Amino acid sequence: MEKTFTQWKKQCLNKLDLSKKGSVDQDIEHVVSLLNSCEEYFTTSSCSGRIILIDGAPESDVQKQNCTWLFVSHQKCTSDDLVSGLAKSSRDAVLKFEPFVLHVQCRRLEDAQLMHSVAINSGFRNSGLTVGKTGKIITAIRSTHGLEVPLSHKGKLLAGHEYIGFLTQTANQKMEENLRRIHRFYQNLQSALTTEKLQKLQLPDHPSSQELQHPPDRLVTEKEEKSKRSVYKRRRKREQHKTDCCHGDKSSSVQELDDCLDLFT
Amino acid sequence: MEKTFTQWKKQCLNKLDLSKKGSVDQDIEHVVSLLNSCEEYFTTSSCSGRIILIDGAPESDVQKQNCTWLFVSHQKCTSDDLVSGLAKSSRDAVLKFEPFVLHVQCRRLEDAQLMHSVAINSGFRNSGLTVGKTGKIITAIRSTHGLEVPLSHKGKLLAGHEYIGFLTQTANQKMEENLRRIHRFYQNLQSALTTEKLQKLQLPDHPSSQELQHPPDRLVTEKEEKSKRSVYKRRRKREQHKTDCCHGDKSSSVQELDDCLDLFT
Repeated sequence: MEKTFTQWKKQCLNKLDLSKKGSVDQDIEHVVSLLNSCEEYFTTSSCSGRIILIDGAPESDVQKQNCTWLFVSHQKCTSDDLVSGLAKSSRDAVLKFEPFVLHVQCRRLEDAQLMHSVAINSGFRNSGLTVGKTGKIITAIRSTHGLEVPLSHKGKLLAGHEYIGFLTQTANQKMEENLRRIHRFYQNLQSALTTEKLQKLQLPDHPSSQELQHPPDRLVTEKEEKSKRSVYKRRRKREQHKTDCCHGDKSSSVQELDDCLDLFT
Repeated sequence: MEKTFTQWKKQCLNKLDLSKKGSVDQDIEHVVSLLNSCEEYFTTSSCSGRIILIDGAPESDVQKQNCTWLFVSHQKCTSDDLVSGLAKSSRDAVLKFEPFVLHVQCRRLEDAQLMHSVAINSGFRNSGLTVGKTGKIITAIRSTHGLEVPLSHKGKLLAGHEYIGFLTQTANQKMEENLRRIHRFYQNLQSALTTEKLQKLQLPDHPSSQELQHPPDRLVTEKEEKSKRSVYKRRRKREQHKTDCCHGDKSSSVQELDDCLDLFT
């Protein structure tokens, strides 16, 4: 029996949070809450971003279950936090900054496309859709923004305190940038959802496509216009990235700049 | 005018390769070639994986265009390669291992789902679909497997030769693991495409669903069975990862293990 989206949502939101932490991270409560208040969406998992020190076998980066967490923080950390954590290492410790990640189940493919578009335009370039065989559609919002530094080998520290101090600063800067991106995502999301709602309200009157693009609310229109301009800028930036690829077709996207969810996202 | 998939494919494959390198990386020529020989797919950009030393402003990790490449290799590297590269740093140098990445344009959503499924089951957990407004469907195949180590600040080296030696070893191990995953992806892809073809050939005769799952070719069936078993194992592994998430619903996927393209992919 195929479940409906509403049943899935109800089931998911009523379920116990079985994650290690057991609750939504504070810095993204508003994002999760906004999404769960929409009838088109609900969140299935999330992390606001974290600085984490993992101890494990050298090649076990895929199998986190065999690793020990020496330290974890969803806020900025101090050099002492990392030094204390590293003192407990008995295998290979790695310092990671893992950015904001969010999985959003979407009612229809169009809803998932909207979510993906908002994510890409907010700087989450590794985002993507998943379309399951049972009809489950999920947009994963992911960033390219990371840090992954080996710091001990067989329990032996590989770096001095000065370097650990520098890494602390780098990880904290990434945490700040991460929060800026979450904020940008939240603002773009609010704006996109408002526009969607207005368009739906207008639909029964069959407005012209011109009107659809520019809802009457002046504030929203201005926001949207601004957002469109910045989206364009970001696309131009992506254009310039393309030469970094080993093999790729740069020109196709120059011709199709209007295709927001184009290549290299 | 909406372009058809065939037109897109023709246009893309006839185009000059405008990437920095200008050609497909040797280690993935067979993968790109296999995909481009299928009528359902073509590749739009790719990189086999690389070790790269980038020099840039501290917070410029998103804007690669303002960075200098101090060193890049699609093969294993030596400690001397990195030391020589670092000697040229005048800003903030970062050593990165960037794994295999591939963008595949797909004819239909089902084709993209198949590609995504093969990617996930081969260990490329950050893969995802992009569905454009013009009908363009792209599966991005991405790994979580990385390395990102700051090594100089304002041109001043932050690490000793011993540490750089260790990083060289780590980056080279990741390169090896990357090649293993590409090989696994290629094998799973071949197997999935063969099964697809056989199923299509059988369709006009309306075989039972049992027959559809087990095409007559004994070799393929065995491969598929083996692949199914390893997929199951990998799913079980993912189950165990889930507690690492900050907020998430572990149990939903336990109930739906048969939904290959489920959460947390």
